[in-house]
Amino acid sequence: MSLHRIHNFNAGPAALPLPVLEEIRESFLDFQGTGMSITEISHRSKPFDGLLNDAIERLRRLLGLDARYKVLFIQGGASLQFAMVPLNLLADGASADYVDTGTWSTKAIQEARLLGKRVRVAASSQDRDFAYIPKAPAFDPQAAYAHITSNNTIKGTQWADFPDTGAVPLVADMSSDILSRTFDARPFGLIYAGAQKNIGPAGVCLVIAREDMLARVPAGLPTMLRYTTFSEKNSLYNTPPCFTIYTVGLVLKWLEETVGGLAAMEALNRRKAALIYRTLDASGFYRGTADADSRSRMNVTFRLPTPELEAAFLVEAQANGLGGLKGHRSVGGCRASLYNAVTLESVTALVDFMAEFERRKG
Amino acid sequence: MSLHRIHNFNAGPAALPLPVLEEIRESFLDFQGTGMSITEISHRSKPFDGLLNDAIERLRRLLGLDARYKVLFIQGGASLQFAMVPLNLLADGASADYVDTGTWSTKAIQEARLLGKRVRVAASSQDRDFAYIPKAPAFDPQAAYAHITSNNTIKGTQWADFPDTGAVPLVADMSSDILSRTFDARPFGLIYAGAQKNIGPAGVCLVIAREDMLARVPAGLPTMLRYTTFSEKNSLYNTPPCFTIYTVGLVLKWLEETVGGLAAMEALNRRKAALIYRTLDASGFYRGTADADSRSRMNVTFRLPTPELEAAFLVEAQANGLGGLKGHRSVGGCRASLYNAVTLESVTALVDFMAEFERRKG
Repeated sequence: MSLHRIHNFNAGPAALPLPVLEEIRESFLDFQGTGMSITEISHRSKPFDGLLNDAIERLRRLLGLDARYKVLFIQGGASLQFAMVPLNLLADGASADYVDTGTWSTKAIQEARLLGKRVRVAASSQDRDFAYIPKAPAFDPQAAYAHITSNNTIKGTQWADFPDTGAVPLVADMSSDILSRTFDARPFGLIYAGAQKNIGPAGVCLVIAREDMLARVPAGLPTMLRYTTFSEKNSLYNTPPCFTIYTVGLVLKWLEETVGGLAAMEALNRRKAALIYRTLDASGFYRGTADADSRSRMNVTFRLPTPELEAAFLVEAQANGLGGLKGHRSVGGCRASLYNAVTLESVTALVDFMAEFERRKG
Repeated sequence: MSLHRIHNFNAGPAALPLPVLEEIRESFLDFQGTGMSITEISHRSKPFDGLLNDAIERLRRLLGLDARYKVLFIQGGASLQFAMVPLNLLADGASADYVDTGTWSTKAIQEARLLGKRVRVAASSQDRDFAYIPKAPAFDPQAAYAHITSNNTIKGTQWADFPDTGAVPLVADMSSDILSRTFDARPFGLIYAGAQKNIGPAGVCLVIAREDMLARVPAGLPTMLRYTTFSEKNSLYNTPPCFTIYTVGLVLKWLEETVGGLAAMEALNRRKAALIYRTLDASGFYRGTADADSRSRMNVTFRLPTPELEAAFLVEAQANGLGGLKGHRSVGGCRASLYNAVTLESVTALVDFMAEFERRKG
C-alpha cells in the first residue's frame, strides 16, 4: 500500500521532514535498544541525557552560539514567553522597547503591560495593517531590551535584516523562522521560538539566553517562570517534554547532516519563496498582501479577486493534495507556509496548481 | 525480528500500554487519512478538535465528573501547578491547609510560600521520614482549600481514603495515581496530574477544576497562568502539546474499552501490588519502607539488607529484562512502579526474580 501524504502548507503545527517521521516510527517501540519507547524512558537516564545534550550542541553549532549563551527547553509556548521575558528581564521602573509588527508582537506588548511593566512601542506598522516591517526604528538607548518578532505568520512579513539597537540587547520571538536562515546571534540577549513551525512538534519552546540576561532574573518569581531554573538544571528541573525534545533533536540532525546547515537551508528557502512570489508578481489574479521589501520567506500571504474564488481555491487545492493554505482566521485569504520541512517539490506542485487555477478562473 | 521490550518499572516517564504504542506507530505518517502525521496537523483542525474532545469526554466518564468540572490540559507539569494553585485559588490574606507527605507536598508548600501566600501545614509525616500518611488531619474550616498529594512516588505511600475536609474544597496532586482507582470526585475543587505516569507521555498536565474554583481566578496573573485562559478556550488559547494530548486520548480509550474502566483497573492494580507486598512480607531479606496501612499500590519502595546487595539486585534485574527499579536518587534503595500500563506478567516476572535472587543471596 502506498503511503498517503499531502503537500502540507500548515502555519503550525506544520510539516516535519519525512526522514525524521520515519525514524521516529521505526524506533518507536524500542528506543536505542532500551526495550522502551522514547515516551517511556526516564528523563534522568543516560539515553535521554545523550539526546538532550546532542540537541543543544547541534543548536549551538547551527546558530554559531558562543559560550555566553545557554540553550533551554521550556513548556508553555511563545505565549508564556510573552510573560517570562518582561518578568525576568525588565525590572520595575525600567522600560523596554517593542516593535509592533502585528498579532504576536501586539500580544507580547499587551502581556508585558498586563504584568505592570513599562513598555514603549518604538515603532509600529499598524497604520497599514502591518503589511510592512518598520524601517530603522529609533530605540531608546536606556531600554532594558528591544523586542521584535522576526517573522509574522499572520501578516506574511519578516525582518530582512535585524535592526541596529546599539548597546541595547535584542530580544526576539523567532517562533516562525528560527533556523530558516543564517544570522549573527551576538546582538541578541534572548531568543525564543515555539517548536511547532521549523524545529519540531508542538509542546516545547526553545529559549536561547545570554549570561547577562540570566543575571537579571529576580528572586520571588514562580520557580517554573525563572529562566535560571532551567539554565541551572540543563532544562531538567522537572520532567521535560521528552518526546518533543527528542523530535527536535532529530530535526536538528536532519538540518545539519542531510540539508547541510543553515546556509544551505536558507538557499533552499529562498528558492521556495521566490517560486511563489514570482507567481504572484506575474499574475493579475493573485495579489500578495505584504510590501515587497518586507515579504516573509516562511509565510506567503495572498488574496484572490473575490472571497468566492478564495473559497474555491482552497477546496480545489485540498482536493489536489495541497493542504493548509487557508489564511489565519483573523485575516482570511490564503497563506502558504514554507517552513524548512516543506520541500521544493511541494512548492512546485503549489505554483503549478496556482497557474492552472488562474487559467481556468482568471 | 522479534521485538525487544523490557519489563518497565520506571517511576515516570513510565510504561505505556503496548497497544497504544502500536497504534501510534501504525498511524504515525498518516493520521486518520489526513496525509499528515499527528505531529503535523493543525490544532485548529477538525481531527484535532475531535481527539481533544474525545479525550475530555472519556475522562469525564471514567472519573464520573459532573457538569461543574472543566477538564484542562496545561503545560509545565505539576511543578507549575505548585504555583498556579495558590496564585489562582488563594487570595492574599486567606490561608490554605497543606498536608506534607514528602518531597512533592513539600515542594508545593515551598512554592506557595515563595509567592507570599499564607499556608498552614495541617499535618505532616516528616517525623518518621514520611513513611506514613497522617491519620485524620484537623483542617481549618476557614481554609481556602486543603491540599494533599494522593500518592507519594518517592516514599511509596498513598492515601487509602481521602480525608474529610467538610466544606473546604480538596485540592490534590494526583500525578502518580490518577485513573488507577475509583474515587468520589465531588469533594475536590481541583485535581492536577502530570501525564507521564498513568495517562501518557511527559509534556502535559491534566487539570480538573470545579466552577467555583474558576470563579476565584484573579485578574492580573500572566495569561498562561490563569486557569480561565484554558477553561474559556477549551485548552486551545495557544498551541497545545498535540502529540501528548493525542496519546493521552489513546490511553484513556484503552482504559475504557480494553481494560473496562476504573473499577477493573483498580482490581488489577490491587492484584499487582499484592503480589509484591506479599513477597516483601514473607521475606526476611526484602523490607518495605512504608507503613502497612499507608502503602502505595503505584510505587512499592523496598530495601535489601545492604547497599551492596541493592546494587547487585539492580544490575541483575536489568540483565533479566527488569528495568527502572532503582529508588529515587534522594532516598536510594529499590522501587517498583506499578502504574496502569505495567502488566501482571511484568509483576510476576519481578516477584519470580526477587524470590530467585533471595534464594541465591539471602
